[in-house]
Amino acid sequence: MRWIRYQYGGSASYGIVEGDQVEEVSGTPFGEHRRTGHRFPLTAVRLGVPLVPLTFYAAGINYEEHVREAAALLGREPDLPDKADIGYRANNALIAHGEPIIIPADATEQVQYEGELVVVIGKRAKNVSEDEALSCVLGCTIGNDVSERTWQAGDRTLWRAKNSDTFKPMGPWIETDFDLDSMETVIRVNGEAVSQFATNNMIFGVAHYISEMSRYLTLHPGDMIWMGTDGATQNIEAGDTVDVEISGIGTLSNPVARAG
Amino acid sequence: MRWIRYQYGGSASYGIVEGDQVEEVSGTPFGEHRRTGHRFPLTAVRLGVPLVPLTFYAAGINYEEHVREAAALLGREPDLPDKADIGYRANNALIAHGEPIIIPADATEQVQYEGELVVVIGKRAKNVSEDEALSCVLGCTIGNDVSERTWQAGDRTLWRAKNSDTFKPMGPWIETDFDLDSMETVIRVNGEAVSQFATNNMIFGVAHYISEMSRYLTLHPGDMIWMGTDGATQNIEAGDTVDVEISGIGTLSNPVARAG
Repeated sequence: MRWIRYQYGGSASYGIVEGDQVEEVSGTPFGEHRRTGHRFPLTAVRLGVPLVPLTFYAAGINYEEHVREAAALLGREPDLPDKADIGYRANNALIAHGEPIIIPADATEQVQYEGELVVVIGKRAKNVSEDEALSCVLGCTIGNDVSERTWQAGDRTLWRAKNSDTFKPMGPWIETDFDLDSMETVIRVNGEAVSQFATNNMIFGVAHYISEMSRYLTLHPGDMIWMGTDGATQNIEAGDTVDVEISGIGTLSNPVARAG
Repeated sequence: MRWIRYQYGGSASYGIVEGDQVEEVSGTPFGEHRRTGHRFPLTAVRLGVPLVPLTFYAAGINYEEHVREAAALLGREPDLPDKADIGYRANNALIAHGEPIIIPADATEQVQYEGELVVVIGKRAKNVSEDEALSCVLGCTIGNDVSERTWQAGDRTLWRAKNSDTFKPMGPWIETDFDLDSMETVIRVNGEAVSQFATNNMIFGVAHYISEMSRYLTLHPGDMIWMGTDGATQNIEAGDTVDVEISGIGTLSNPVARAG
């Protein structure tokens, strides 16, 4: 099942996608809800981000090849994480499928995509085992962890490197039928594939992360975890369009602009 | 004016404190609202956290003496920040005035308080000057940035060190009449003062942080910024009570327990 969140009459509503139609739902996928019977063509609604979480979790470093590529660029030895320490991103930076990534005027040319699986929590999780963990997941969507590399290397925190307004495209929807092992992530810039990897080839998997996190914190319905990216990344610039496709979910597509 | 958020009949409402009474308000201080005329004794309501932000900002390192004390403990040279890079904390960890800080079972004894000024945003802020910045602030409340120091030193991120459930007490209310220069922060453990400092003696002040942040991100009504703590900090343990008092605002008080 595919959940979308869309703008309609000035407020955001959830809906369920069926073919090229959307059925409106009152309530949210994270609480009580019911189908209203109202249907629209999918092309007639403006997509919003599928959710705004209570807490925005991000694994950050979670694929070996990405760690090795990043270390090689800096002339350092790769430093693989030895445990599933979760990080954070910021809700101010979220934008929907189709909305523009706006590079700040004083950013360098080192602004890069990172295509990521996003896991959406559907049930409260506290002290859950790895075996139980996936039963707390409502579904999956797609994120683009846009990053300014000189700020990432030089600032004390990741605030503007990762969380400048518009640096976190997410969508287009939440897919509840998913099979992690069969997923492949493909990133395209202007239609040309620039990165491709097995989505589940993570250093620490989704179930392990959820179980470890839940030892110290409560995951709430509507929280989400961005799972990291693999491989090398390249610069994007004004006029580009970045697509992140994950098989079984869909494609997140965003144009790129630069602030004047 | 003092805004509280309180539990009443299963849901959270805002109210305005007047003496020992609360007047109920429909809506929130961050949007349309009106006084309902319903009044309760302040002692009859259960306080909630005064807000749950879209994004939870935290300056982290923002007082010289605190940097020097922390460096001395590690046998390092103090490394003072050279610009106002903002960090983050996580909403899952928020608890209200009076609720217990629960130390995880496997934490060391190195769990410590950090008493902090919390600045609450009332108006949208994007590209604001330092002169304009304080006009975007609704008011101030108080935070306790509880920290497990061995996890803070050893994990890749601050996730469980700073954001274990219950590690972010905040409250008791938002005070809209404030004078930063006249504020003093006093932290007490079991009634005994353990730390005392001029609240506004920051490396980077409130207006500077807001102005710098707003160059890259939009501050939204209901966002908040925790401004950091000064001086040395000490361990707290089960059975203790930690009070953070900031003159002109009030006192945030929380008991400490340990998970079994």
